[in-house]
Amino acid sequence: MAQDKSEDAEKLIGKEFKVLDHGFVRLVDFMGDDGAIVQAARVSYGKGTKKVSRDRELIRYLLGHQHTSPFEMVEFKFHVKLPIFVARQWIRHRTANVNEYSGRYSVMKEEFYQPEPGQIRLQSDINKQGRSEQQFPADLQEDFLNHSSDIQKRVYEKYNHYITAGLARELARINLPLSLYTEWYWKIDLHNLLHFLRLRMDPHAQYEIRQYAIVMAEIVKAICPISWEAFEDYILNAQRFSATELRILKATLSGFTRDKSALVAAGLSTLEADEFLDKLEKIRDL
Amino acid sequence: MAQDKSEDAEKLIGKEFKVLDHGFVRLVDFMGDDGAIVQAARVSYGKGTKKVSRDRELIRYLLGHQHTSPFEMVEFKFHVKLPIFVARQWIRHRTANVNEYSGRYSVMKEEFYQPEPGQIRLQSDINKQGRSEQQFPADLQEDFLNHSSDIQKRVYEKYNHYITAGLARELARINLPLSLYTEWYWKIDLHNLLHFLRLRMDPHAQYEIRQYAIVMAEIVKAICPISWEAFEDYILNAQRFSATELRILKATLSGFTRDKSALVAAGLSTLEADEFLDKLEKIRDL
Amino acid sequence: MAQDKSEDAEKLIGKEFKVLDHGFVRLVDFMGDDGAIVQAARVSYGKGTKKVSRDRELIRYLLGHQHTSPFEMVEFKFHVKLPIFVARQWIRHRTANVNEYSGRYSVMKEEFYQPEPGQIRLQSDINKQGRSEQQFPADLQEDFLNHSSDIQKRVYEKYNHYITAGLARELARINLPLSLYTEWYWKIDLHNLLHFLRLRMDPHAQYEIRQYAIVMAEIVKAICPISWEAFEDYILNAQRFSATELRILKATLSGFTRDKSALVAAGLSTLEADEFLDKLEKIRDL
Amino acid sequence: MAQDKSEDAEKLIGKEFKVLDHGFVRLVDFMGDDGAIVQAARVSYGKGTKKVSRDRELIRYLLGHQHTSPFEMVEFKFHVKLPIFVARQWIRHRTANVNEYSGRYSVMKEEFYQPEPGQIRLQSDINKQGRSEQQFPADLQEDFLNHSSDIQKRVYEKYNHYITAGLARELARINLPLSLYTEWYWKIDLHNLLHFLRLRMDPHAQYEIRQYAIVMAEIVKAICPISWEAFEDYILNAQRFSATELRILKATLSGFTRDKSALVAAGLSTLEADEFLDKLEKIRDL
Repeated sequence: MAQDKSEDAEKLIGKEFKVLDHGFVRLVDFMGDDGAIVQAARVSYGKGTKKVSRDRELIRYLLGHQHTSPFEMVEFKFHVKLPIFVARQWIRHRTANVNEYSGRYSVMKEEFYQPEPGQIRLQSDINKQGRSEQQFPADLQEDFLNHSSDIQKRVYEKYNHYITAGLARELARINLPLSLYTEWYWKIDLHNLLHFLRLRMDPHAQYEIRQYAIVMAEIVKAICPISWEAFEDYILNAQRFSATELRILKATLSGFTRDKSALVAAGLSTLEADEFLDKLEKIRDL
Repeated sequence: MAQDKSEDAEKLIGKEFKVLDHGFVRLVDFMGDDGAIVQAARVSYGKGTKKVSRDRELIRYLLGHQHTSPFEMVEFKFHVKLPIFVARQWIRHRTANVNEYSGRYSVMKEEFYQPEPGQIRLQSDINKQGRSEQQFPADLQEDFLNHSSDIQKRVYEKYNHYITAGLARELARINLPLSLYTEWYWKIDLHNLLHFLRLRMDPHAQYEIRQYAIVMAEIVKAICPISWEAFEDYILNAQRFSATELRILKATLSGFTRDKSALVAAGLSTLEADEFLDKLEKIRDL
Repeated sequence: MAQDKSEDAEKLIGKEFKVLDHGFVRLVDFMGDDGAIVQAARVSYGKGTKKVSRDRELIRYLLGHQHTSPFEMVEFKFHVKLPIFVARQWIRHRTANVNEYSGRYSVMKEEFYQPEPGQIRLQSDINKQGRSEQQFPADLQEDFLNHSSDIQKRVYEKYNHYITAGLARELARINLPLSLYTEWYWKIDLHNLLHFLRLRMDPHAQYEIRQYAIVMAEIVKAICPISWEAFEDYILNAQRFSATELRILKATLSGFTRDKSALVAAGLSTLEADEFLDKLEKIRDL
Repeated sequence: MAQDKSEDAEKLIGKEFKVLDHGFVRLVDFMGDDGAIVQAARVSYGKGTKKVSRDRELIRYLLGHQHTSPFEMVEFKFHVKLPIFVARQWIRHRTANVNEYSGRYSVMKEEFYQPEPGQIRLQSDINKQGRSEQQFPADLQEDFLNHSSDIQKRVYEKYNHYITAGLARELARINLPLSLYTEWYWKIDLHNLLHFLRLRMDPHAQYEIRQYAIVMAEIVKAICPISWEAFEDYILNAQRFSATELRILKATLSGFTRDKSALVAAGLSTLEADEFLDKLEKIRDL
């Protein structure tokens, strides 16, 4: 029965994967796997899917052609503990369900993010939004960490003090820093999760959110290995060339082999080989 | 473990519930139940939920106060077979995932909806969008059913003929009637499903889609009995009075008891009794 | 032409409405008004809307019967400056578009929220998520404000220092407090905006976000006065009674007049009077 | 002022563009244009956008890097008349607002789609969902058209007959064919509209919906010419190569010039040239 979770996948449920200094990702539950994608697609395409009979080939076809709806039939629910500045990037993904710990209802715990020294780096000149490969001078790294722990401690003490004195929690918290940890339940379907992972595993994403994405990618890979492989091939490690770029490559690619059997030998299915030749043909027409 | 489905709920999976003459609803899978709502809410409200310690009370509180996000943590996946005119109403609910049988990929099956004679009724004068209680004259009922089966048969024969002759399926189908059955996988979270059910179980909804809603309601009730009971009390059988209506009721309600123990004896929790008195107070202020 | 904005409404565009100590709401643009709702509804209901011929009556009917889609045909775009802890509540409304100032791309400005002394209040015992009516002792109010400005100043100085020293902006910011101001463009349709306003104008919403909601409500009222009036009557000042509450009220309401002309004299339309009597009838059946 | 619509764009409002035999697309209203994208992006990226100072370059950068949120700040509202089988494909795009003519409230008009003879083609062997280039035999084309008009006429006569006899509209309509025209108001933001256009202008989309997409593309192009140009270059006429395809191309591309000035001369900006070289580098590493 499609609804039985494989034993290996089941083992992942409830396991806490550490992320950063105090954070974690924990798979709370999931519904469906590669089989559920195939199951939904076969309803959708009916007898039309018979030819593409093997599951792997079907999943690759769907993902490669952006038939995304069958991937929405798989659902993941995570429990995540993360610094607020990471949560603020994460929440931008709207097609998901979230239940966050509330600082209005409950007292925030004294847990703050401190970067590893090696991650305390200079502003990148190339990537306007990120850090470079070059580390902050060692003394400034130390200074930054000292300042951080000092501020975090001092602000939390005061927070605690005001809470004890009866101040409304919703007000007492307003000076807590963005490095404070929060937690939430987060539920999302596989299609939207892959979109999240593509953006958040990207080298341009902030290092801290990337650590969460990397852990979640491993979970997805364990539960939906065929989808993950297709995602790596068609999306994560693919390259899109703009029309201008293609025009530039045109001359170089013009002599490229049209030998289909060579393409199949190189790892494409016959269907993919046809489509590859079709792409090259389109470049020729630019 | 929260992820273990209760045996009774599990038994529902895969079972085909007949709807209308050829339709059905089949629960393909689900994730979570009443326990998952409580689980998510407790993360959200932390220690704040301790006082509202019992699950039933918490779920009622959440639903009564429109804290809807914990209800999004439960997910249902259905396989549904339904006439196209019903599908066209259904698809208007956008916060759901769907994989429909495609008439471009596959040949449509010869299955059409025919209403039961008793449902063939006159246009309602009151409900501008629906049918009245009064039946169509018996001879016209028969005429309508004969016409329907005649057209359905004739159009399908021609459809089949053109398909056999090689016509593109996407074109051959364009004269098939809205009474044709289609099918789909439909996945939705509990919050949005309850919204769907509220609208589609309503007497103003078309009779045919109501039959589907009624069957799905039974499934929800079996899997999330506490949520369902709260939904019936706070939403389905509740009444909203507009400000103008409340002003009209004001005098009548002005003498109503403020005796809390009487309210508790009548079935409200003490929290609910407070809130009820608060509503009456607000009416007095109008 | 429906697309011409009324002069009064036009005047609102670009005007900055102050909120809290450093925040604002500014209407950047809007599309449609009450007329656009009527326009869309008439396509939807075709000749069926002829009877409900006057615009006001139609809009009231739509809103009162939760025919929400015509209200999605009006769109508002705001520029808002707000403390981060307010932004974190706000962003939970997912059916909206947002472009926020990015602390990874740009240096955050030195602007922090400080509550007015009168708003520095004790935790409420009744409302687990909010503040009570009772003020924090005067000396503690002062202490809180001093601590806030001290921390805000000190943390910003350090932030500035590290930025100048070349630290990546995405890291330098992590200890900035939740009271820091951010800003964004926020676009939403009228249906979802009314939902936002209902939740965020509610006394249970945090005082600070309520100030924004109040200002935006004035803007909506100026642009869509008929919709706003209907919203106040049917939603904001309405009361929903649960089935249990209705059973309790049953005896009291049993003798209520069924005199339709009295109801019309009291302010209901004849259609509304019918529906009101229908609600009372349903209570009788409970 | 950003809110003033350019005169040329304004002229498009209300103009009916014919599509298919009885359909049309009419721009009802819009909010924002290329300027609104730049305006929102500059809030988002603050001073970070100064370097990318020119609007065109900024829009191209945003679209090329899938910074999609600024494109959500532009909104289009269309009035569309379309056959039901097209409407059923169209409605699958969920991030949009729709008000459709209702066959429950109103009598459907006698307007049906008939394909042009040249479009009556054989099922494609390659594209499992579409038609081929080869026409249906001329006699069968004629037969199909005769059958269509015969059925459409006959079913509508009966529909009309039952309506006149008082049958509920919601029932009388169930045998009307999928070729019947319906109409709706449809509102969507530019980001989601471009996604719609990419999928529905694709040669794999059904011919009939493609005709609508082509007309809407012209409208988008007129109102947001810079975005459209970027969309054509980066999305519509771009090619994505999978990791496997890139490995196959690796040897051929290994000798490709790294001469940046040649790339700039060929039409890339210096930023784009860097990114292009970066893509080639990544292929080398596969």
